[in-house]
Formats: sequence, structure tokens, C-alpha cells
Amino acid sequence: MRLPVPLDRAYRLLNHGPTVLIGSAAGGRRNVMAAAWCMPLDFDPPRVLVVIDSATFTRELMEASGEFSISVPTCAQRELTVAVGGDSGREHDKFEALSIATFAGEQVRAPLIDGCVAWLECRVIPEPHNENRHDLFIGEVVAAQADSRVFSSGRWHFDGADAALRTLHHVAGGTFFATGDVVGNDR
Amino acid sequence: MRLPVPLDRAYRLLNHGPTVLIGSAAGGRRNVMAAAWCMPLDFDPPRVLVVIDSATFTRELMEASGEFSISVPTCAQRELTVAVGGDSGREHDKFEALSIATFAGEQVRAPLIDGCVAWLECRVIPEPHNENRHDLFIGEVVAAQADSRVFSSGRWHFDGADAALRTLHHVAGGTFFATGDVVGNDR
Repeated sequence: MRLPVPLDRAYRLLNHGPTVLIGSAAGGRRNVMAAAWCMPLDFDPPRVLVVIDSATFTRELMEASGEFSISVPTCAQRELTVAVGGDSGREHDKFEALSIATFAGEQVRAPLIDGCVAWLECRVIPEPHNENRHDLFIGEVVAAQADSRVFSSGRWHFDGADAALRTLHHVAGGTFFATGDVVGNDR
Repeated sequence: MRLPVPLDRAYRLLNHGPTVLIGSAAGGRRNVMAAAWCMPLDFDPPRVLVVIDSATFTRELMEASGEFSISVPTCAQRELTVAVGGDSGREHDKFEALSIATFAGEQVRAPLIDGCVAWLECRVIPEPHNENRHDLFIGEVVAAQADSRVFSSGRWHFDGADAALRTLHHVAGGTFFATGDVVGNDR
């Protein structure tokens, strides 16, 4: 079940360094791409960083709309994650080509990806220097949700859940690590 | 055995999103802190991003020296990682207090942490706006090494190695995930 995540806990959805899917939409077009380079920047208000190459269609849609979504994919979605990372959405709609189901966000028009385990809706905080020089975007998180099977009370808990629901960490070329077991106890 | 990592492969040491230790040194003082928010920014020349709070002693040393080191700790170093993340080095030397062994870098004076499995030496690319507004630093990687037991030929390979050598991904409050098993094959 998808449940809202309080905004001051949204950073925890990305804190462990998963590879993510970036959703975007503008002018009747939409896109999704994979990004290994995405992390929190601040807790409250929650902000995130993501590197988006200037040649991508995602970049064009993000710049047109000032919005994007982050969906956190699972091991079961490895092939989808590789597929949307190796292909441009400029010439065709990846959602149709790859039968990717989506649902609507609460605050932004960028699509959220079905079957993922966490979702963050973001508004771009415009910083032309970072965007132009570093392909670096800053987003303010304006809504967040997570799959209660693996995230609740502000915390991931993959132990005891289906291993296919664990998140992905990109190594290179379509190979990932799954998120592993818990090390250490809460303090 | 520590082996050099070619600079154009250095991003792979951080690509999977591990929590890292930031080393710094200036004016005869030195420090180490934990950072969950550190990721690659560019491949070649390799650049990294790291968020360093303005109140930290690390920040002071980084600003004075224009350098820092990144060491990637293992599951065996969880307690060390928690300890250096929860304490300031301004009043006492964490290395002595916690018996942390170091070795010298090749390009920077910031200490590298013994027992870790990857090390990146970085020079700060000064960007006052990012530093002052976002506590965000950009470093150019000028040297990189890794422990050949778990990283070689430009690739992590934790399978078959001691599980204690796996890297850490911070959840919250001293709890981490270990880097998990490989999902998918090289292409």
C-alpha cells in the first residue's frame, strides 16, 4: 500500500544511495530515465540533487515544466531500469514502448512509476550556474510516498519482505547491487 | 592490497551510493567525519559532490586546505563510522581518541583511513555559492585507490570476499544496510 511520507523524513527514501527513475512531463509529452547520481541535499525543507545530462529529453521536459518525479525501483524492475537508462524518449514514448504503468502525483504532473517502492515529487529550484556548468539540478520535495511493505514509520525495513522489493545500487553497465541486510542497531 | 584506480574509473567507487568518511587536514590539525551525502558529479575529469555542514571542523579544514579525502568504510567499520559521525574533532583529535589508523595520500595531505576499501583524493573546486548556500562542495578527484580484494579491473566484486568487507549505506541513527548481492549481468 502506498502511504504518504512526512516531508521531513523524505530524505530517508534516498539516504542509502539507491539508483532512481526520473519522471518528467511538459506540453503533452512525458519521459522517464534512470539516474544513479541523485541524493539528498537538505532535510527540512527537503531538497535533493540530481545530475541530468544536457542532451537528454528529460532535461528538456524538466526545464519546460520546472518539475520532476523520483521513483525508487526494485530488484524486480532491474530490466526496466536498464531499458529506460539506455534509450532516449525524444523519438518515442518509453511508457508505451516498454509497457510502463504510471500513476499521477499529488503535486506535480511528472508521472510516478508503478511497482517502485518510493516516490518523491519535486519542484526545480532554478540555479542556472549548476544546471549549465554541472548538469546539476536541485529539487525541493513537495510530496513523498512509499510502499508500506518496505518503508513505514520513517524507516526502510526490507528484512522479512520479498527480496524482489529491495532497491538497486548501480555498479556499471546494467549490473546493480541489491540493498543488503541491516548492519547495526537503531540508537 | 591497495591498488591505484584509473581516474576515469574513480566514479565507480561511489556509484552504488555508499556512506563515506571525509578526511581533512590543515595547519597541523586533521579530522575525519562520516558523510552519507556524497556522489559522483562527472566522469572525466572525475568530480564528486559532498555536503559538509558549515558548523563542522571538517569544513574549516577543507576551506583552509582546499583538499579532502574520501575513504569508503566497510561493515567491519560500522562503529568507527558512527563514532566519527557523532562527535566533533574541534576539541580533540578523533584519530587518537578512537585509535584510527591512517596512511598518507599521494596527492593531498588529508589522511586516508586504514581498513577502508576505497580512497579518493580530492581538490576542492571553489564555488562559493554552492558552499555558502547549500553546504555543497565539488571536488576533483586527483588520485584513487581500492582494495584489490573487492575492487579490481574497474569493478566491485564483493561476491566471494569476506562479507565484512562490504560497504555501508546509511539508513538513520547508526543503522546501515550492507551492500547486497549482484543483480543482473554485465552487458
